Amino acid sequence: MKEKDFITIIKQITNSKYIGDDCAYLKEMGIVITQDSLVEGVHFSLDYITPEQLGYKSVMVNLSDIAASGAEPKYITVSLSMPACIESKFVEKLYTGMQKACRQYNPQVKIAGGDITGGDKVFISICAIGSAINRRISSRKNAKPGYKIIVSGNHGSSAAGLYLLLNGKNTPEKFIKSHLEPKAQIFFGEKIAETIMQDYAMMDTSDGLMDTLSAIAYESGVSVEVDFDKIPYDKDIKQFENWQDLILYGGEDYQLIAAVPQDFETSAAVIGKIKKGSGIDIITADKKIHLEKTDIENKLFNHFDTEKNI
Amino acid sequence: MKEKDFITIIKQITNSKYIGDDCAYLKEMGIVITQDSLVEGVHFSLDYITPEQLGYKSVMVNLSDIAASGAEPKYITVSLSMPACIESKFVEKLYTGMQKACRQYNPQVKIAGGDITGGDKVFISICAIGSAINRRISSRKNAKPGYKIIVSGNHGSSAAGLYLLLNGKNTPEKFIKSHLEPKAQIFFGEKIAETIMQDYAMMDTSDGLMDTLSAIAYESGVSVEVDFDKIPYDKDIKQFENWQDLILYGGEDYQLIAAVPQDFETSAAVIGKIKKGSGIDIITADKKIHLEKTDIENKLFNHFDTEKNI
Repeated sequence: MKEKDFITIIKQITNSKYIGDDCAYLKEMGIVITQDSLVEGVHFSLDYITPEQLGYKSVMVNLSDIAASGAEPKYITVSLSMPACIESKFVEKLYTGMQKACRQYNPQVKIAGGDITGGDKVFISICAIGSAINRRISSRKNAKPGYKIIVSGNHGSSAAGLYLLLNGKNTPEKFIKSHLEPKAQIFFGEKIAETIMQDYAMMDTSDGLMDTLSAIAYESGVSVEVDFDKIPYDKDIKQFENWQDLILYGGEDYQLIAAVPQDFETSAAVIGKIKKGSGIDIITADKKIHLEKTDIENKLFNHFDTEKNI
Repeated sequence: MKEKDFITIIKQITNSKYIGDDCAYLKEMGIVITQDSLVEGVHFSLDYITPEQLGYKSVMVNLSDIAASGAEPKYITVSLSMPACIESKFVEKLYTGMQKACRQYNPQVKIAGGDITGGDKVFISICAIGSAINRRISSRKNAKPGYKIIVSGNHGSSAAGLYLLLNGKNTPEKFIKSHLEPKAQIFFGEKIAETIMQDYAMMDTSDGLMDTLSAIAYESGVSVEVDFDKIPYDKDIKQFENWQDLILYGGEDYQLIAAVPQDFETSAAVIGKIKKGSGIDIITADKKIHLEKTDIENKLFNHFDTEKNI
């Protein structure tokens, strides 16, 4: 089974209206909440990520979800599980990295609690809370035909970095850094959420640009047209044989993609538009390819397909 | 190292004023938040707990922390990690149990999100949020000399149940049920938090009655005197050789203990009082024993001491 199939089961059993977006928006409390985990052997290997980078990244992936909602990140709690043989230095470094991530923003995000237990592997689950006060919160269901699609930054760099790490290479360092030290696009999300007057869709690209666009298209019941040449990417990525796939399908860039009304003023890169229909049209210099949701899912990383894991 | 040593390191690095109580009280947002994990091989074995019981218990241990704060439980998010070989039926049953726990309270607690990933072992980390509106939130730092100590119910039953399970016995069933299907004492906490006019200390007894009393004594800078004969317990526990230790040191009863002013009206069992000094005096029919924090810690279960794990 795939992660999405499990989520379908969970939605059926819980009948929860909150499950679906990167964050759950708890309107009566004026907050958004999200929880995401990093599991050793699935999301990372201690062979190539330092404890400090791991702490930093585990916070950033959660703040990225808060950013995608448009909310202001405020607090996190941390569940840590790890083998008894791990030294206290590891915990120190891990939390130093977490603290570093929390201090990237002003006012800084606060670590409010959590727990620590034994276990066979390192497992970090972080819950992040954001304030929705004076912000319009996004939903992936909100894209409408005519909206333009904007993006906060480069795609493909993180997947390129992971490829280098898995193949024992250490240059170009910038790609490796993109993978090990991503940065949640808080300001991009904030700028939209504080000024926009209409509903809009926004997601982070944790599972890749195409997965994100596909989710917005499917959940909003619309089609997405994306102009490949307008997607921002680091030009050096062309040294990788499959560079176009890295840009389209590579995960963990933690950029934001939003579908906003045409007249919403922004300096962000516009990479396409929302149309009536379903699926995604990718336009390149010489062709136009149409992909449906299932085509895209078949190309994506699946945690439960163990052969593809790290 | 012990869990408490790690928490000391984390407190030092994060310099967080929120870490210390069962829940973090985020005053500006009017909420409390807690996060706790259940790890296969550390907190449970799939040999004796059903997926539905596991789901139920994983929610209850978190709602118990909310109860200990005095807040009203509102929402949970769930991070689940599990091996690829686990069938979808497991996930269905697990969430059915979670849903069952959420429906024990009125208005019912809502499952608002989370994530699901692969992993070697089953790992469940739940974050719970409660509303602090119109409640006085507890802190383990709030016990004052002269306060009385009250308790919500029986102690020792859960540890007795675990002993039976680990020794392949299935009677008396009530003890096993206490271990596998604990119930968070939401109403007990609510009743205090809604009516009390002064600061008070409250904790759940997840790590045992003595651990809880010791934490209140240490964090409040006071001493606790407890009358053993007044502690509520199931009389059938006397069939266990070490029944007094089960009552005093056995974990996972998830009852609440509170230190409240003498004049606070309550029908709850009063088991002792707060005095000046440090540590705990246990009074039995024929003797009085004084224990300091370190004496108690040496007797307690430690997740990082693998020999003692399940």
